[in-house]
Amino acid sequence: MAVYTEVTDEDVQAFVSGFDIGTVVSLKGIAEGVENSNYLMVTDQDQFILTLYEKRVDRSDLPFFIGLMRHLADRGVNCPLPVAAKDGEALHELAGRPAAVFTFLEGMWPRRITVRHCAELGPAMARMHLAGADFSMRRRNALGPAAWRPLFDQSADRAHLVDPTLPALVATALDRFDIEWPTDLETGLIHADLFPDNVFFRDQELTGFIDFYFACTDFLAYDIAVALNAWCFEPDGAFNTTKARALLAGYQRVRPLSPAELSALPVLASGAAARFLLTRLYDWLNHPAGAFVKPKDPVEYLRKLRFHSTVTGPAAYGLTS
Amino acid sequence: MAVYTEVTDEDVQAFVSGFDIGTVVSLKGIAEGVENSNYLMVTDQDQFILTLYEKRVDRSDLPFFIGLMRHLADRGVNCPLPVAAKDGEALHELAGRPAAVFTFLEGMWPRRITVRHCAELGPAMARMHLAGADFSMRRRNALGPAAWRPLFDQSADRAHLVDPTLPALVATALDRFDIEWPTDLETGLIHADLFPDNVFFRDQELTGFIDFYFACTDFLAYDIAVALNAWCFEPDGAFNTTKARALLAGYQRVRPLSPAELSALPVLASGAAARFLLTRLYDWLNHPAGAFVKPKDPVEYLRKLRFHSTVTGPAAYGLTS
Repeated sequence: MAVYTEVTDEDVQAFVSGFDIGTVVSLKGIAEGVENSNYLMVTDQDQFILTLYEKRVDRSDLPFFIGLMRHLADRGVNCPLPVAAKDGEALHELAGRPAAVFTFLEGMWPRRITVRHCAELGPAMARMHLAGADFSMRRRNALGPAAWRPLFDQSADRAHLVDPTLPALVATALDRFDIEWPTDLETGLIHADLFPDNVFFRDQELTGFIDFYFACTDFLAYDIAVALNAWCFEPDGAFNTTKARALLAGYQRVRPLSPAELSALPVLASGAAARFLLTRLYDWLNHPAGAFVKPKDPVEYLRKLRFHSTVTGPAAYGLTS
Repeated sequence: MAVYTEVTDEDVQAFVSGFDIGTVVSLKGIAEGVENSNYLMVTDQDQFILTLYEKRVDRSDLPFFIGLMRHLADRGVNCPLPVAAKDGEALHELAGRPAAVFTFLEGMWPRRITVRHCAELGPAMARMHLAGADFSMRRRNALGPAAWRPLFDQSADRAHLVDPTLPALVATALDRFDIEWPTDLETGLIHADLFPDNVFFRDQELTGFIDFYFACTDFLAYDIAVALNAWCFEPDGAFNTTKARALLAGYQRVRPLSPAELSALPVLASGAAARFLLTRLYDWLNHPAGAFVKPKDPVEYLRKLRFHSTVTGPAAYGLTS
């Protein structure tokens, strides 16, 4: 939840006058999204999302994100479409920050995940991967395996305060990734943050994806690994094989996984759990006292990492290979 | 900024099916309002505000607030109109909390206050006071002068940590209120929280009021005193007499102030400053570490209280009596 930048009505009116989208009738900060300031902006023509990019987003990455959303939307993947201003550009400045206007995507993110949600997510993710295949820009995964050891080093001295078993479990996992992390899986455009709050549904049907600000070029199967972590564990910590099977089967109806991808799933899922454990751990130990954003509990992902560490093959994810 | 209660899509759909407002297309938590959870809810018919009442609002007060907004809207005061469900009632339960649906009010609250805003606020506030005159329900001001000394007692032992001059200044002010607080001013329905973020404008024209959850029966002039504090100080702490004059002159064009009201303005303004100083002080000293809501700085209102303490007559507020 985040509105970091307050913008004056005069500044917004001046900004919006550069677009052909009418005049602003209402502007309300949205209590979702952590990296940027998002407003729901109603004009006399339509409703839009106004995004101001805050410090955590590298400005040099913005053309990649904007270009990607336009690329996907052009290929029928439902996502917010950047609105070009009268000068043809989507990116401008507002209140000293880069800012863009996006079309409004219908739907709600699911608060209680069902098997049906997972069955919808799988094929939609696969279609996004196929649609991204001819996207010409590339972006390194800044939170990929090479980042995890340095990230852990920044938290290592206090990590035991969060959970006494955390340091050893992470150390073992990092050693495993050094040896087992795959090198030759199919690479392409991934969302890299496919949590339920970034996927919209209406009447249990998937209506689209939002928040592409971790998107990058990486193993396609890593996106699946993130989603297995984010969608297939129950609130009590149990892994729900039925949900995983629905997600994977749905994905494979659109894009079958190769044998190499299938056998890499356990280490990829372990890596995805480690990635979110480590960023949450860092935020947990370093968030300022008066911050707006309540940090997410790293222990949830410690439990998930522990689960994946015990997995010996893709059958644990509901696959009968 | 507040979304305290997460509601599932299924619960919202079930709740909304009790109304004649279409089906829900989108639901976004709004990062505004401190007391309740507010969502912007788009249906296939229109857009609405969905409010879930959290613990800080007394359930027994809800009929007063709902009835008041309907009363004012019926008399042409622009404010969110509670939408009656098919059963004729506006209040129902959602996610274990009382909840209501309101019409969407156009406009934005002004981030940078101009004299024009103050000139618009005055007559609109006076019209609201006149429209409230025949509202039959009454509600005691729970944060009126009788509450201030007990409120300060709860913070007194640590108040000096916020500002060393605070305890003496507040003690002097409380003693003054015991003696000088008026007893016979015109009483009626007041908003009691007329801060800029509760007043919407479009192109510098006032479009309406929101957030009536401190509304109560009290001196009408006390509403003016709150607004003088909230609208007429500059960010550097200076009191802007031009803004105050615009506010008061605009108000008096619709409802002239009596001599008793005019001469009570300094003590009322002092009291309003003390009220917000004391609630902010309490929240500042008692907010939990991981809270979503960043408490507002009490020192801003300490400075305002100090200003009003030096005022000897209504001329300080731009009035030439």
